[in-house]
Amino acid sequence: MNPVIDLLKSHRSIRKFTDQPVSKELLKELIRAGQGAATSSHVQAYSVIHVKNSENRQKVAELAGGQAYVSTCGAFLVFCADMKRPTDAAEHTGAQVVRGMTEQLLVATVDTALMAQNVAIAAESIGLGICYIGGIRNNPQQISDLFSLPDHVYPVFGMCLGYPADQPDVKPRLPVEAILKEDTYQDDRDQVAAFDETMHAYYQTRSSGHKDSTWSKNLTPLFSTKLRSHMRNFLVKRGFELK
Amino acid sequence: MNPVIDLLKSHRSIRKFTDQPVSKELLKELIRAGQGAATSSHVQAYSVIHVKNSENRQKVAELAGGQAYVSTCGAFLVFCADMKRPTDAAEHTGAQVVRGMTEQLLVATVDTALMAQNVAIAAESIGLGICYIGGIRNNPQQISDLFSLPDHVYPVFGMCLGYPADQPDVKPRLPVEAILKEDTYQDDRDQVAAFDETMHAYYQTRSSGHKDSTWSKNLTPLFSTKLRSHMRNFLVKRGFELK
Repeated sequence: MNPVIDLLKSHRSIRKFTDQPVSKELLKELIRAGQGAATSSHVQAYSVIHVKNSENRQKVAELAGGQAYVSTCGAFLVFCADMKRPTDAAEHTGAQVVRGMTEQLLVATVDTALMAQNVAIAAESIGLGICYIGGIRNNPQQISDLFSLPDHVYPVFGMCLGYPADQPDVKPRLPVEAILKEDTYQDDRDQVAAFDETMHAYYQTRSSGHKDSTWSKNLTPLFSTKLRSHMRNFLVKRGFELK
Repeated sequence: MNPVIDLLKSHRSIRKFTDQPVSKELLKELIRAGQGAATSSHVQAYSVIHVKNSENRQKVAELAGGQAYVSTCGAFLVFCADMKRPTDAAEHTGAQVVRGMTEQLLVATVDTALMAQNVAIAAESIGLGICYIGGIRNNPQQISDLFSLPDHVYPVFGMCLGYPADQPDVKPRLPVEAILKEDTYQDDRDQVAAFDETMHAYYQTRSSGHKDSTWSKNLTPLFSTKLRSHMRNFLVKRGFELK
């Protein structure tokens, strides 16, 4: 439709990078582009840790479940939902502030994601590849300790950035008719069934191996266990009390 | 730096639109671009309600706190975090599934935000204006009733789309040095103080009025009350049990 929309539709996670580093100046430009995203009531409830220290990169790679590219990519960022800065700012005006609301967790999480997605698009627009690392929530307390994150700040996800050494296929997505519903929530089991076939064919034809699976089957291990059941207590302990 | 980055940095919320409608075909193209965003473990945990019914548009405008443009913009979308589709899909494979985890709330909320931001960028790339509507969380239960949202689906935010009839200033953002921290979380009170001055000057020179405020002062009412204190119970009731 236009080059921007083509770019948005061509995203794939990159997990192999060349040795070329990503400069601090470029990172700042990407973050500035990130900051252009909408922010709820202008709170800008996010901070980003640029992990330069190579030992820490290695530790994060391990904590995130052995994702070596966290340590080898051109730059690694930890995106944090930050309710400390805006609530502290309000408090410094002399106000009595309320913290720990579930609504504040949502605001900060959404703000962080909108901003990060702008960073991802900006990076891809100049030929970088990126990969979100949700695995940092495997060990959010250790991640928080590693970067001295204060209360009211939590690590939402990481992001690997770098010059791609690989160009994997763009993974199929659910039919748009499953996602976009008119006026009322409609059942989408038929579209899911069609998508299971799409994914089955995709897995069969991939050059990297012939997996006999579907979208639904692939999701099963994800929802058969209490994945990251520590998140609730972790958030509460860090001042996101879910009030 | 390049036209995409220029676009990302030129976002402003649009609240005045021409009468030109946004076609269904265009909306589908925007949602497809949205689906290009990264999604945690491929869950695609989102659904979007396209609100065509004008009575419902009017109701949402009121429920969101009297935001008339919800009713008058070219198209209005409700972005929902949807954990029903992926958990149902896993269940239909015969698995015993776990629902209601706090982690699942985060995954679905982030997935929805990443996707929505792609929609916003796609829309702006073709000359549309957008405005996120967090105000739908003022009355999330009524919004859910209006669109028959099932359990494990919640409305995160709305989005107005349309052809802009106004081009407001791009609002300043915090200094990039406050956001991007190196290796460890650093205090950013100095940058916040500088930004308070930036915002004070911005409010003084705006054509739409001369407000005597700063960023910190502006945030004070937001954090002085238990804003949207219903969110916790609402989420729990809808199957996001924060386990």
